[in-house]
Amino acid sequence: MDKKLFQAMHKLFNPRSVVVVGATDSPDRVGYNILESVLYGGFKGKVFPVHPRLDTLQGLKVYPTLEDVPEPVDVALVAVNQFATVETIAQCGRLGIKAAICLAGGYRETGADGLRLEERLISTAREHGIALVGPNTLGLINTGADFYSTFYPLRLPKGRVSLLSQSGGLGLTIMHKAADEGLGINKWVGVGNRSTLEMSDYLEYLAQDEETDVIGIFLEGTEQARDLVQTAARIVKSKPVVIYKAGRLAATEYAALTHTGTASGSYQMYRDILMNQFGVLMVDSVAELVAACKALSVSTLPAGGGLGIVTHTAGPSIALLDSATHQGISVPPLQQETINQIKDVLGQNPPVVLKNPLDTVGVGFAPDMYGRVVNAVLDDPGIDLLVAIYCLHKNWRFPSSELVAAQQRSGKPVLAYYVSTWEGCREDRQLLQQAGVPLYISPDEAAGAVSALVHYGNMRGREKHAG
Amino acid sequence: MDKKLFQAMHKLFNPRSVVVVGATDSPDRVGYNILESVLYGGFKGKVFPVHPRLDTLQGLKVYPTLEDVPEPVDVALVAVNQFATVETIAQCGRLGIKAAICLAGGYRETGADGLRLEERLISTAREHGIALVGPNTLGLINTGADFYSTFYPLRLPKGRVSLLSQSGGLGLTIMHKAADEGLGINKWVGVGNRSTLEMSDYLEYLAQDEETDVIGIFLEGTEQARDLVQTAARIVKSKPVVIYKAGRLAATEYAALTHTGTASGSYQMYRDILMNQFGVLMVDSVAELVAACKALSVSTLPAGGGLGIVTHTAGPSIALLDSATHQGISVPPLQQETINQIKDVLGQNPPVVLKNPLDTVGVGFAPDMYGRVVNAVLDDPGIDLLVAIYCLHKNWRFPSSELVAAQQRSGKPVLAYYVSTWEGCREDRQLLQQAGVPLYISPDEAAGAVSALVHYGNMRGREKHAG
Repeated sequence: MDKKLFQAMHKLFNPRSVVVVGATDSPDRVGYNILESVLYGGFKGKVFPVHPRLDTLQGLKVYPTLEDVPEPVDVALVAVNQFATVETIAQCGRLGIKAAICLAGGYRETGADGLRLEERLISTAREHGIALVGPNTLGLINTGADFYSTFYPLRLPKGRVSLLSQSGGLGLTIMHKAADEGLGINKWVGVGNRSTLEMSDYLEYLAQDEETDVIGIFLEGTEQARDLVQTAARIVKSKPVVIYKAGRLAATEYAALTHTGTASGSYQMYRDILMNQFGVLMVDSVAELVAACKALSVSTLPAGGGLGIVTHTAGPSIALLDSATHQGISVPPLQQETINQIKDVLGQNPPVVLKNPLDTVGVGFAPDMYGRVVNAVLDDPGIDLLVAIYCLHKNWRFPSSELVAAQQRSGKPVLAYYVSTWEGCREDRQLLQQAGVPLYISPDEAAGAVSALVHYGNMRGREKHAG
Repeated sequence: MDKKLFQAMHKLFNPRSVVVVGATDSPDRVGYNILESVLYGGFKGKVFPVHPRLDTLQGLKVYPTLEDVPEPVDVALVAVNQFATVETIAQCGRLGIKAAICLAGGYRETGADGLRLEERLISTAREHGIALVGPNTLGLINTGADFYSTFYPLRLPKGRVSLLSQSGGLGLTIMHKAADEGLGINKWVGVGNRSTLEMSDYLEYLAQDEETDVIGIFLEGTEQARDLVQTAARIVKSKPVVIYKAGRLAATEYAALTHTGTASGSYQMYRDILMNQFGVLMVDSVAELVAACKALSVSTLPAGGGLGIVTHTAGPSIALLDSATHQGISVPPLQQETINQIKDVLGQNPPVVLKNPLDTVGVGFAPDMYGRVVNAVLDDPGIDLLVAIYCLHKNWRFPSSELVAAQQRSGKPVLAYYVSTWEGCREDRQLLQQAGVPLYISPDEAAGAVSALVHYGNMRGREKHAG
């Protein structure tokens, strides 16, 4: 992307100072909450609230107009109505403020009058070279700079996944699900009406952003999917992109996207082409999006697609196997050498079913014994990554330290599916995920994670061999 | 079902006294944990541990043999190995103990020798008329009697959903997901090898059980699905049954189940027939199973299939709409009268999109305003049930009391989808679910809940009119 635009966007996410136009003292109002959001999030830069009559707000000195702010401002947070927003952007232009986040709705989404107003907003921003987020947006977050400019005061765990959402509300759903899953976020953008900054601008920015390892996207409706997926297909060569698209694409749209020239295939077929040939990960739910982003953020990539499964209880492995094979993942048989090693660990004549998935039954309940079996399976040349299934038990610990050691020893990705509540495995989750082992508590989400790692790993592998 | 069998099973779930054969002092062992499970769960009846040498275990007097137990025993918990289990069952027979839960594996699942041993177990149990759970099972739970006879010591929130699982481990996953969702459980059974008690026996028992309102089932593999689904199709006329089947049924199996005489249809088509014609709810994941059971347990049934959606943020409603229409749910337009009422609430010229889903945008953020809009939509004759979407906000409360009032006022089912973490809406969840409003935090699970209510409501409606 254009270096100047990159720098302007960098300032948007990392301002040294912000002004809040429309700050107010009523907690019902957006103008109150955007100011609180900045302060509550722990922003280290300067904050200048603007209100025509108030003296102080939330402990800060208030300035009667934008002109009265005594220092240079990097980003204007604009929380006035749609008409006053246009005037504010013009004022920003005159004062040399080069970036603005415009919260108010009431533009093109409301009809012809709104569209005309939005066109005025766009031309004003362009005239002054202002990078404008929104309008009609919840705002944006950069946890790396403790900068929370949404009108939902929040604090998020820090991480290296960044999220773009065409919807603020669904973006919040994704954010909350990530928090429930112990997944840290770096940047989050509700892109709103995308008057000047397009979804693809944010995507290009995140592709170059050194704090972002994985990009998750939520798209509403069908517009622009084609351009965006094509941009994503370029970016995935260096950084994974996971797309959740509501209003699932019609076959004709997929046909266009994949250049197959035919619209006769199924949704699943086109989705598979995007995943397998282009390496763009397409998912159908919030849960799948977060599962995939977590896997790609926490784990290394597998060198191939052979999934090993180790469990001490059959059912969860059957549900995982079902879900994974449904997503095209192969669960190859174990080699005789591997089976011999497992016999050495578990004893010569165990009631164990010696295949993949490997069910250690009773004898494998002991975490250390279980860890040794996991090592043996990871040593199998046909196994490229492994899911370890273990049940929460009041008197037995999880094999977390063994799984971390096994992952480090083998260099292959290890994922855990613990049969538990989140509360029951909170401490283990932190240990595992910090050490590179993503944790899930449902078979479907574990299968989605495996699918993301395998599809993305395959694409990167092809790129490497081609280059 | 046979009255004698019902009474025997009733005693299994509601014993006055239990003996633990194979109780031991090592926390690694099943025999330790099954005893702890009974005590930890708060069992009010008498507990007699049996061990040849120990004097006391976990504060209880120990008996050297089963014969030494001085009082009548309702249920034997058998935690010795597969060979000793057969002897123990014979002993139970001689002592008049009529019910047993056999935990050890090592039977038919291990091959020909194991099968022969299981046949001996079965004939011994039959000879003495013993109702036998398992073998090769985690055990069973009845929260209504504080009776936890699994070797995973647990305490669960009480409720009116009962679960049958062909797998202990996946049954635990379902149980934990239910706990995370604030869904109370009444009975839970890991059915194991089903040597004497079949899945359909448990199903028939739960159908008659006054403490169970909703039955959830997990099935592994493909065996016996036909008989079971046919039993379920009879039971659903009085009580909902939700089935999650791993190893999704092949088209031929569906064809047999639905008597369509053809195997040319898709998985989805056969699933729809089971749902629409038979009223048996078929789901494909743990999340869907729990979402459906929660809806059917917490909510009333809708009189028809028209879904209304009210939101103050577009994206979540689009994701919900997408997922619900994908499951065959209709989201009808609102009547003019309804739209006029909403205009009265929100003002004459709001930037609101006056259709279904109804997006109140900014003006509807206030919980009381939002509640009034929900009332207006529920009054629409085309709307049979409603999902209310609302975002967690640090300074604004959820409209929970309004939703409860709206549900009571209209008599129509109201579901909530709160954009939040579970931690963020824990208190509201309790308020809502106790008052009949099931709460979800993902669009897909909310859509699954709607689908369950509509499909089951339709079937019950047809039954009523036919009867």
